[in-house]
Amino acid sequence: MNQSIKERLEAAYAAQLNRTYYSAWPESPRAYAEDGMAQGLSAFQSLLTQNFTELFQEGSLGWLGEEVSPYMMTGLGVQYPQFSADALISNAKSAQKVWSKTSADTRAAVLLDALDRVALRFFEVAYATMHTTGQSFMMSFQASGPHANDRALEVLSMAYHELGRFPSDVAWVKNMGKFDLTLHKNYKAIPKGIALVIGCSTFPTWNTVPGLFGSLMTGNASIVKPHPKSVLPIAIVVAELQKALIAAGLPATIVQLGVDTLDQPITKALAEDDAVKLIDYTGGSAFGDYIESLSGKTVFTEKAGVNSVILDSVVDATAVFGNLAFAASLYSGQMCTAPQNIFVSSTGVKTPEGHMSYDEVVAGIANAVKGLAENPKMGAGTLGAIQNDITSSRVKSVESAAGSGVALASMNIVNTEFPDARTASPTVIAVNASDVAQWKHECFGPIVFVVKTDSAEHSLALTASCADALGAITCSCYSTDDVFMGEVEDAMNAVFTPVSFNFTGAAFVNQHAAFSDFHVTGGNPSGNASFTDSQYVNRRFVWVGNRRMG
Amino acid sequence: MNQSIKERLEAAYAAQLNRTYYSAWPESPRAYAEDGMAQGLSAFQSLLTQNFTELFQEGSLGWLGEEVSPYMMTGLGVQYPQFSADALISNAKSAQKVWSKTSADTRAAVLLDALDRVALRFFEVAYATMHTTGQSFMMSFQASGPHANDRALEVLSMAYHELGRFPSDVAWVKNMGKFDLTLHKNYKAIPKGIALVIGCSTFPTWNTVPGLFGSLMTGNASIVKPHPKSVLPIAIVVAELQKALIAAGLPATIVQLGVDTLDQPITKALAEDDAVKLIDYTGGSAFGDYIESLSGKTVFTEKAGVNSVILDSVVDATAVFGNLAFAASLYSGQMCTAPQNIFVSSTGVKTPEGHMSYDEVVAGIANAVKGLAENPKMGAGTLGAIQNDITSSRVKSVESAAGSGVALASMNIVNTEFPDARTASPTVIAVNASDVAQWKHECFGPIVFVVKTDSAEHSLALTASCADALGAITCSCYSTDDVFMGEVEDAMNAVFTPVSFNFTGAAFVNQHAAFSDFHVTGGNPSGNASFTDSQYVNRRFVWVGNRRMG
Repeated sequence: MNQSIKERLEAAYAAQLNRTYYSAWPESPRAYAEDGMAQGLSAFQSLLTQNFTELFQEGSLGWLGEEVSPYMMTGLGVQYPQFSADALISNAKSAQKVWSKTSADTRAAVLLDALDRVALRFFEVAYATMHTTGQSFMMSFQASGPHANDRALEVLSMAYHELGRFPSDVAWVKNMGKFDLTLHKNYKAIPKGIALVIGCSTFPTWNTVPGLFGSLMTGNASIVKPHPKSVLPIAIVVAELQKALIAAGLPATIVQLGVDTLDQPITKALAEDDAVKLIDYTGGSAFGDYIESLSGKTVFTEKAGVNSVILDSVVDATAVFGNLAFAASLYSGQMCTAPQNIFVSSTGVKTPEGHMSYDEVVAGIANAVKGLAENPKMGAGTLGAIQNDITSSRVKSVESAAGSGVALASMNIVNTEFPDARTASPTVIAVNASDVAQWKHECFGPIVFVVKTDSAEHSLALTASCADALGAITCSCYSTDDVFMGEVEDAMNAVFTPVSFNFTGAAFVNQHAAFSDFHVTGGNPSGNASFTDSQYVNRRFVWVGNRRMG
Repeated sequence: MNQSIKERLEAAYAAQLNRTYYSAWPESPRAYAEDGMAQGLSAFQSLLTQNFTELFQEGSLGWLGEEVSPYMMTGLGVQYPQFSADALISNAKSAQKVWSKTSADTRAAVLLDALDRVALRFFEVAYATMHTTGQSFMMSFQASGPHANDRALEVLSMAYHELGRFPSDVAWVKNMGKFDLTLHKNYKAIPKGIALVIGCSTFPTWNTVPGLFGSLMTGNASIVKPHPKSVLPIAIVVAELQKALIAAGLPATIVQLGVDTLDQPITKALAEDDAVKLIDYTGGSAFGDYIESLSGKTVFTEKAGVNSVILDSVVDATAVFGNLAFAASLYSGQMCTAPQNIFVSSTGVKTPEGHMSYDEVVAGIANAVKGLAENPKMGAGTLGAIQNDITSSRVKSVESAAGSGVALASMNIVNTEFPDARTASPTVIAVNASDVAQWKHECFGPIVFVVKTDSAEHSLALTASCADALGAITCSCYSTDDVFMGEVEDAMNAVFTPVSFNFTGAAFVNQHAAFSDFHVTGGNPSGNASFTDSQYVNRRFVWVGNRRMG
């Protein structure tokens, strides 16, 4: 193995052990080619209204594609080759014979090469992400580019470490008194089988590449089944993976892209096929529960949750409201880590200036959200666009049900660059804790409830029970009371939810950093997997030891 | 933490990484106290026909116990305190509050202390095992004593390593251009919840302690539910665990023994309780499948399988038949690792002296089994006794179905020390591959089929399909052909079954060594867990990270 490849993997694994700041690809676009943005835009534009011909997959049934830009509200016109589930499985079975016998060193080299190839297309991937998800350019660049690559490298280095944990050969010598019994043993990490990776519409690469690289690194030929409305970013990643495989003299079909449409989905046919042993899934809970219910499969899910904020006491209310407003507005609340319910005691929030009443808190949050949304330099860029109509409709129906509780109505924020963009700023709704029908379920999108509780302890109890019953990926707590913070940490950790305390300034609860923050704990209903703990790779293969005499 | 404890754990973990021979407790009874055997027998006898009063569990409903010695065919008369499932769960919930907050260092010290305490009672545990399972004294001593302790230490050291994989605290500093963003992060290994460990009748400690020590070391209060016919060995282990807990100032009920009867079982009530999050199970496949089907549980199973031998070509037929006869006779085939089906081509077996016909192979195996069984110095001691009547009956019904295929009938081997012992030597049955109704399912006990196939390749195909469909914990292959051995290794490893090649002399396929051999791979229907790979401990807790600003 090339020494520099080994060093990169070891550095990345060491970073996971240290969990201090680490990044292999800079997150600032300025760190890349000076004309990257222009070239990326041009490359993206040249893909539009064309067949996507970069894949090395033979025998397509035809071409399909139904992506729509949430900024332009027009179809992208990119068409992808169509394959039946059977054809994808059949190709994967053939490729698996080669890939399962490929050494971990070679797999690592090929997969790292693919990441380097993807890095050369970060700007193009960013535009593709922007015009499928509605993320801002900056989030698109960071999330689908360097951050996704970092998370893939994280998994790659963890898997490389785990595959090398045990020796490939040993002589086992046991003294039997008058003689030694010697057995020659070997240990093999046997891949589980064909892997299926099911993508979501809002984060087409960030959530998909960790599972994909985990399955590939552990020797499982993989099929990527993107959300039909968000294909292009991951199509580019798959194309670069195939190029890296071909460059190494390996079958391109070790990874395949299987595109379908909303009307004629192939996901269940793929998931239920006996040959598919591994499934990574990101998306809604109903389909995720179905995936988890399939027998004979090893499944990694990231589903929905209801993320909470406990607002107890603050040093600087303005800074806190600003931070919360940004966390709720970033990509219009369409992040799985975005806060939905802010719990505030009916006695209000303690500040250095005295108690701020519940109503003042609601007004403060609403004003902060309004100020951000209407700020011409911040609003459109922070909010981005709404990925689909269902989310837009949800905002309206939630507001309608809330009636007089609406403290701030969702607004259509004009994006001067894209006047047709589908936008919606967060609605802020005041609600009593007893009105569970309103707030106690996931309301995906730009929807924030400020829930009036009896006390901080009541806020914590609701937050914990919500995470336990519905799942939670994040939890935020603002308190100046060390004892209470300890209680929050204990109670939330007991329902397997991480807590972020007193985030202001540049720290946002939405952001989970590769190499440092576990994303989803796997312990509550929001998902059964965490990237990247060691199980995230170890469950993808099986250790088998053989023994030979003489 | 006491330095010597840390050193012992590190040495044990290093042994797992090396996978060369390692043992912390000598397996020979001679390595222990000279009067150990006599004192152990005396201690065991003093427990008979008494209430077992060593447990620190209050409020029992009464006393129960229905163990029968397979050697004496009389009840042991040991009575254990009876508890409802609800009471056990309630106690465990209370204890869990303390144990989950106990440091990994303290847990490790307490659990290692418990193993040391158990070691002082190895002889007593051996007699208890002998007179509940029917194992010979030597197997009882080794399997329930040093080997069980070694497997527990293996799990303990793996868990200790995994719990320390990530730092407890870090400062995460990200340069944001004009300033640094600093977050203080912690990482906690949160126990999953209450653990249930369900034992089996034939190996009451060897299979039970790994899961029990895995759950305890990772902070989960545990309930041991032994098989009603095989309680005493694990009762002694639980009692010593409780003494070690009390010595450390901890609640004894961090581990509890929950005994039931065949007529009034409490296993399902325990398993289905919402508070029970972890279940370790050893036993039959039907109940194991039920355990695996429970939702919201993390389950580790070791169920049944059909273990095969592929007999292709040999250097020394007599040595091979002798080895097979011993492997099939050891504890009368009641080991989950014992061979059941020996596949031989209709063209026979290649030997240096030329082809040995299928019929000659059958006769050779039958003679070897007969010779061993009837050898007064070997027979009774190797076979031990039959644990229960169901196994005895199975031998008779299988023979009856085989008709003229019976090459060697099972014999009642007189044990001069225990004339009333329930014994049965292996029956050897010649059968055609097409007679799947006879051989293609698990026939637990002293039953060996010599299956006539079309060729060595056919033998391999049947062995692999059997492991894939029915599970297998071991596979044995005798061949002098390197190419064929490679094919066998590939095909069997692909169905997640380890292969032992050309075992003769003192090497037996039945024996899986701690620190070196993974027991059950977890990849085929014989079970979903392997001890000890890292998942065996990592699935018992959840990593949760918290972040704090300033």
